[in-house]
Amino acid sequence: MATVPAEPGGDHPMLIGVLGGGQLGRMLALAGVPLGLSFRFLDPLADASAAALGEHVACAWDDAAGVAAFADGLDLATFEFENVPLATAAAVAARVPLRPGTAALAAKQDRLDEKRLLRALGIPVADFLAVDDRASLDRAVAALGLPAVLKTRRDGYDGKGQALLRTPGDLAPAWTALGGRPLILERFVPFVRELSVVAVRALDGDQVFYPLVENHHRGGILRRTVAPAPDVGALQAEAQAHAGRLLVHLDYVGALAIEFFAHDGHLIANEFAPRVHNSGHWSIEGATTSQFANHLRAIAGLPLGSTAARGHCVMLNLIGDRPDPAAVLAVPGAHFHHYGKAARPGRKVGHLTVVADSAAEAAHNAQRLLALVDDPAPAR
Amino acid sequence: MATVPAEPGGDHPMLIGVLGGGQLGRMLALAGVPLGLSFRFLDPLADASAAALGEHVACAWDDAAGVAAFADGLDLATFEFENVPLATAAAVAARVPLRPGTAALAAKQDRLDEKRLLRALGIPVADFLAVDDRASLDRAVAALGLPAVLKTRRDGYDGKGQALLRTPGDLAPAWTALGGRPLILERFVPFVRELSVVAVRALDGDQVFYPLVENHHRGGILRRTVAPAPDVGALQAEAQAHAGRLLVHLDYVGALAIEFFAHDGHLIANEFAPRVHNSGHWSIEGATTSQFANHLRAIAGLPLGSTAARGHCVMLNLIGDRPDPAAVLAVPGAHFHHYGKAARPGRKVGHLTVVADSAAEAAHNAQRLLALVDDPAPAR
Repeated sequence: MATVPAEPGGDHPMLIGVLGGGQLGRMLALAGVPLGLSFRFLDPLADASAAALGEHVACAWDDAAGVAAFADGLDLATFEFENVPLATAAAVAARVPLRPGTAALAAKQDRLDEKRLLRALGIPVADFLAVDDRASLDRAVAALGLPAVLKTRRDGYDGKGQALLRTPGDLAPAWTALGGRPLILERFVPFVRELSVVAVRALDGDQVFYPLVENHHRGGILRRTVAPAPDVGALQAEAQAHAGRLLVHLDYVGALAIEFFAHDGHLIANEFAPRVHNSGHWSIEGATTSQFANHLRAIAGLPLGSTAARGHCVMLNLIGDRPDPAAVLAVPGAHFHHYGKAARPGRKVGHLTVVADSAAEAAHNAQRLLALVDDPAPAR
Repeated sequence: MATVPAEPGGDHPMLIGVLGGGQLGRMLALAGVPLGLSFRFLDPLADASAAALGEHVACAWDDAAGVAAFADGLDLATFEFENVPLATAAAVAARVPLRPGTAALAAKQDRLDEKRLLRALGIPVADFLAVDDRASLDRAVAALGLPAVLKTRRDGYDGKGQALLRTPGDLAPAWTALGGRPLILERFVPFVRELSVVAVRALDGDQVFYPLVENHHRGGILRRTVAPAPDVGALQAEAQAHAGRLLVHLDYVGALAIEFFAHDGHLIANEFAPRVHNSGHWSIEGATTSQFANHLRAIAGLPLGSTAARGHCVMLNLIGDRPDPAAVLAVPGAHFHHYGKAARPGRKVGHLTVVADSAAEAAHNAQRLLALVDDPAPAR
């Protein structure tokens, strides 16, 4: 029987392979099914969040046979987890188009490489130095001054693998906690606020940018995003210029986020994520086209959609526990996003979005949601 | 091991059984997964549209063992197909809560019962008479006059099983086509336009109503919906009063649609659908809460969400073929909805929605989409 090449919207659904099957994969699938796409996820977790919405290959990242089975028959592949081993990504890319490509993963997996790349592209970053042993930590602190932030170069996320050094007395305990691995010391930026941008580049090079959003963290984990961020003025254009250079340099296809510190009227990049991003979840209800739909449009070779905000949003992460959905949904304009993950302390298990016509109304209703989230029901 | 009752948003996902696995089931699942719901569909079709998003029991409607297997372990059930045999629905309802209940199905499955119910509730309908044989057809035509519409009482949809009688010469061919089954003759309403409303009733009796929308048909099949309908004035309140009475009478839980003819400044009900409805698809992008999310909120005992329109929408059904998604998505504000069904003449295989800030802009962009749809690419 002759095979017909799959195309979006055609009778033969395009099968997208996703490296990683967490909530980002789940939300990609929710956005992709209406486009006529179907999904296969590679994730070692047996109860991966995205598994409800497609095939699931539950093998280790370095299981060559499992990875080959994952890649077999895909039309194209993408990733939703930036710590996919490069060898795994390369094995997939050898069989099917991987978008974005391995260059984006490679640029991101080591914080030192990441900072060097950003600086080389003219995107401001805090001063930084590599730290490989105790002596180089002392030299780096002498050169950059305190306060500073010591971070592992690999596998850090959600504030893990970081230590803030305020005084010389903080060095020894920080070294005890983090030493022995490749590290980076970064000058602490006394920022006013954290802003982030999601940018999307199409297969034909077209670029779109979502409005800057304002992020608030708790315990190193994103807790709340206000979208669009108020009073950004010229920072929107600055963010787009920075993101655009990074997209082009990486010959990027898909969605990418950059987190910035707003400092002294300008943006200082903290890090980028070569994937859809937690600070873009508001776009599901709050933008004409969600970051998930636009990522899929990009990798499938379709035109990108408008990133314009529709009203004002606040997004709240649900960390460790989920509130009663009946209480959440009684709040005007509130939407519940359940990740299908068991509740555990510190784990992102869902998010809430509230949409309103004005920023004040969104903030008011977000306060009602925060009250539910900060005083959670007893753990189930 | 102790079992924990499932609740929306809890760690034990609530499993919803859906009788029918077409595109309505598919869109219910897309709205329900973020609420922490999971789905099982009963549909005889092996390639049911919704099967990609949940378990699929592919048995005949009258397969008692299959229906029992479908019902086993559900937390609750609903239907997305109004011609589910009553015995099947009753068998499910005997095991798990069925929302809406069998009363709504029973009231709908025979057009004569449906019209009698609407009239009894004070909801205006065109004059009608039962037609059981050739002689009663002649008597009905004499009583109601021409033009009139002869319809089968059961299993009609999308204009099938209907004949418009303009002159006495139309009776014989209509009888040849439709006779031998229970029929109904309805006086033809010289309507200005068709409007429909989707109403939702919560488990606690709360009611919400979407804005009236304006429907345009082609060949008896809904082709295009404009939402909200322009210039409805007092008709919105009239529609809500009618729908509200029907909801209460049926002790209804979930979404229900009523199609009306606008005639002489008032609404005349044509039919109702005890389910989410094609004329409500615009609400996915065009309303604060979609009809699918609100149906699920209702049956799961959650508070209903706002039905307010977000801007202006046009929804176009894709009938028989799908246009190139790249061309569709190049139109500003356009969204593609693929039903995962093979293209076949006369079959609803997807829909497009275009959203804009003004009715004029939505209409303009809908014209661009119509041009793609009316001049389809060669059949794949």
